[in-house]
This record gives sequence, C-alpha cells and structure tokens, in this order.
Amino acid sequence: MSNILIVGCGLIGSSILRAVNNKKIFKNIFILEKSKKNISIIKKLKIKCKIVNNIKNISTNIDLVILCTPMSQYSKIISKINKLANHKTIVTDVGSTKELISKNMKRKLKKNISWIPSHPITGSEVSGPQHGDKNLFKKKWCVLIKEKSFNKSHLSKLQSFWKKLGSKVIFMNSKQHDIIFSITSHLPHLIAYNLVKTATDFEKQKKYNLIKFSAGGLRDFSRIAASNEIMWRDIFFNNKKNMISAINLFINNLNSFKKDINLSKNKEIINKLIKTKKVRKKIVLLKQDTSKPDFGR
Amino acid sequence: MSNILIVGCGLIGSSILRAVNNKKIFKNIFILEKSKKNISIIKKLKIKCKIVNNIKNISTNIDLVILCTPMSQYSKIISKINKLANHKTIVTDVGSTKELISKNMKRKLKKNISWIPSHPITGSEVSGPQHGDKNLFKKKWCVLIKEKSFNKSHLSKLQSFWKKLGSKVIFMNSKQHDIIFSITSHLPHLIAYNLVKTATDFEKQKKYNLIKFSAGGLRDFSRIAASNEIMWRDIFFNNKKNMISAINLFINNLNSFKKDINLSKNKEIINKLIKTKKVRKKIVLLKQDTSKPDFGR
Repeated sequence: MSNILIVGCGLIGSSILRAVNNKKIFKNIFILEKSKKNISIIKKLKIKCKIVNNIKNISTNIDLVILCTPMSQYSKIISKINKLANHKTIVTDVGSTKELISKNMKRKLKKNISWIPSHPITGSEVSGPQHGDKNLFKKKWCVLIKEKSFNKSHLSKLQSFWKKLGSKVIFMNSKQHDIIFSITSHLPHLIAYNLVKTATDFEKQKKYNLIKFSAGGLRDFSRIAASNEIMWRDIFFNNKKNMISAINLFINNLNSFKKDINLSKNKEIINKLIKTKKVRKKIVLLKQDTSKPDFGR
Repeated sequence: MSNILIVGCGLIGSSILRAVNNKKIFKNIFILEKSKKNISIIKKLKIKCKIVNNIKNISTNIDLVILCTPMSQYSKIISKINKLANHKTIVTDVGSTKELISKNMKRKLKKNISWIPSHPITGSEVSGPQHGDKNLFKKKWCVLIKEKSFNKSHLSKLQSFWKKLGSKVIFMNSKQHDIIFSITSHLPHLIAYNLVKTATDFEKQKKYNLIKFSAGGLRDFSRIAASNEIMWRDIFFNNKKNMISAINLFINNLNSFKKDINLSKNKEIINKLIKTKKVRKKIVLLKQDTSKPDFGR
C-alpha cells in the first residue's frame, strides 16, 4: 500500500498520522480535515502530508481510507469515497460500534470497494490533534471485523497495517464486538456520566457544595465523563439494543446491592465485594492496568 | 499533647505514624496492633514507638487516641479506652461515616472523655502498613465534626494536629458529612463494585472473554472496586439511609438515560453529556484532580 487517506484528524486520526509518518508506512499521506483549528495544529507537526478539505482535490489512487470522524458523519462522506475508491481500495474506520454502522456502509459503498471495520481499543478523555501520540496504538488491542465475504488479501493487509502501528490484532464478528464492548466500555462510560449527573442534581437539590470533596471517588468517574459528547452519543445510539440490556442487568444488580444494604446482609455483601477484587487481579494479570496503587494525582 | 495512641496500623494508621514521627509532634507514640504481619512491617520502619497488643500494657496518660481500624471494630475497644482515658484525652477516628458511629461512641464512652470524629479524605484502593505514606494527608481535606457540646480547646488541638500533618481542615456536623460523602464517595464505590459485578455476571452468562478488553473503561472502575471489603461493608451499613436515597436518585437518572437512548433523543442526551463535562472542569479547578489526560497505565 502506498497511499493513505485519513478522514478526520482529531486525537485518533492525528495519532495515526504521527505513527504512519514515524514508521514510514506510506509514500503519500492525505488528510481530509475541515476544522481550521485542527488544520493549524496539524501543520505545526511538520509532517509531510497533503491536507485537503474536499475529497475532490485528491487525484491519486488511495489504498487505505481510514475514517476517524464521529460515526454520525460517515454517511456524509460515503458518496465521495465511492468516486475516489476502486477495487484495490480498503475502507476502514476506528469507530466503537460495528453492527449497525457496518450494515449501513455495506449498503451505501460501491460493491467493489472493500469495507473492513477496525476498532483500536485506545484513547483518552481528551479530544483534538494536539493530544495525538505516535505510540497510542502500541501494545493495545485492535479489533478487526471478519466476515466470510471480505477479501482475504485486504484483510491481511489491514491486519499488517495495525501491527506496524504496534497493535495486537484480534478478529471478531460485528455482533460479538458490540456485545463485548457494551459491557467493557459503553456501559462504564454511561455509568460515569450518570454518576456525575446524579452528583450535580444532588448538589442543586440540597444546596451543598459537593464537588470540592470529589477526591473520595467521584473524581475518577468525572474524568471518564469528560469524554467527547458527539462520539459517545453516536456510540450509545448505534449500540442501542446491547446498551438497554446492559443497563437492565446493571440496575438489577444495583437493586440487589440496595436490598443487601437495607437488610444489613453481611455475608451476601462481603461475598460480592470479594469477588470484584478478584476481577481486579485478573485485569492486572492481563496487563489492562498496572497494580501500582493510585493515591490521586 | 505529648502522647498519641494509634489504634490499628494499616494504610491510614501507618501513614499517621510516619507523619507524626516525621514532624516530631509527640514525645511518645503508642500503637495498638494485633496482626503479626502488620507488626513486622511496622518494625521495619525503625520508627521509635511502642507497639502493644493490649491497651492494658499502656501505663502512661494518652492525649490523643486515634481509631484507624474498620468502624465495625470500634465497639470492641471502647471499654478499654474508658479505662485508659481521662478528661484530658481526645478520642478521634478516621472513619468514613459519622452519624451512627458518633451516636454509639457518645453512648458508650465515659462522659468526661472528648469524642471528636475526624475524616481525612485520602487513601487508595490498597490496604496495609506497607503502603503508608507520611505525605498521605498533605493538601487533602480533613473533615472535623463539630457539635455545640464539644470541648472547644480540644477541638482546636485536634484541628492543629491535622494541620501539622498537612491537611486542610473543614468543620461539618455528622448529618451533613454523611449526606455529602454518600454522593462523592460511597455511591461511586458501590457503583464501581456493581459495574464489575455486572461485567462478571455477563461474562459467565454469555461465555465471552470480556475482561481482557477492559482498557476501554471497565479498568478504571475495577481499581476502585478493589478497595477493602470490610471497610466498605461498614461504610454502606453505617450510612444506610443516605445510600438508599443516593441509589434511588442514581437509578432514576439511569432510567432517564435509557429512555433517551431507546428513543434516540438527540438534544436531551447531548445536553446531559455536555453538563457533566463542565463538572469535570470544576473538579480540576478545585484541584481535586489534574487536567493531565489519562491514556491508561
């Protein structure tokens, strides 16, 4: 592959830009970006690339198109990609939900274009190209969606692309992907938003100044709840069915905790609290976090 | 004040030990600790102090007794403190709930002993004296419970003690304290436990290997849910009434989010997500966290 087009150059897009530049993976890097603020930040990186504000301005063949905009913007761009791409082009993305998006993309993209969704499991609560990092994908999972109809050689090219960026690639189907991440990522984010909302509602209602005492727990949730709202609205809406079952399971468990607390059920509550500690050990063992204690920052 | 007795020398107790030793606040430091493992760790610190396993073995007057055990153990120790303490003694603690505990302590402690509860807002998910730190209280809030009946000179002595450890002291009544921390600390911990429980239930139910993808959000909750189970059971049970209302408020808000997602209520959800971002800014402004982005560890 010699030419890449990065569509949308925020935190993830600009991290891909930095990484492909660092590893010299492509001859030509094209960037589609409309925000003047983002363009000026990208230019300061002094990376050899062509920034365009319209796909029409690209006259070369593109081997890899990678969509890094919020998912709600994909549909706007498909017709333009249809004009640019050919049977050699792989179109992928970095979005956090797969089933619905993939269905739409397959319907709207020209039949001869390879659509293979990706999902690098990385990021932060901040947005924008100023926070990009060439090592953002290093040692992180990247999920590739695999379907029988997909071009095997393209799938293997895309896999090798992510490996060059340092990712550990894993294959799933879109249904499986959306179920797994509804629990490990989408529900935790909704819960963080909901907890912060509950605290502010409470602050208003009781007229207490709560937030200044947030070091005791609320602080950590507020960080997660500071993530980009457009991105998260898109995720919640695109993974609606799984979100609803995850919320229901969560509320059932919370009601059971409430009952244990109300009736001072000692054994039941201790059992539950001990079991969650074991999960923590597993997470550290699987290198999803370090065991270093956190005393706040 | 010349003599201090630290009852229970885990994370908090051993941090107080390190801090009072460092600042040379007392002539004599006594420690009541029964765990052999903890005693051997404390001895390795080479701090001049007397470790006893029974209060009977202390023959000196104690000016400050500070309870650092789980709250469920306070009642076991009161009769012994009654024998040791006199009208000059201040008895305080570091527990996370105040109303119920304070009522019990006032009933059981001899009338001439000053009971003034403290709550330093600090700590970590780890336990044990090996994790103690002389700077644990530095620049952190310490809530002191203030009631009309309290001895003013003792209150001011206790305030000065925490200030010497670097804490910012703030006064509240116990009711106010328990309401505020039910939202900023107790509910967030319960929610973290509940989220991790939901993920493991889900993993069992669907037979998916979820935990290895926990970097997308679950990771951060699992850290909070790794905290000491005895301590948290005591907190949940001792702050029952406020916990139940906090849980109810949380579930109401979550049901409203569920409805927004189910009906794709764009404006409603964006509004909610933007508002929580503002809270984050306030938390950083109030120096409860730094604004440094977190990309995982």
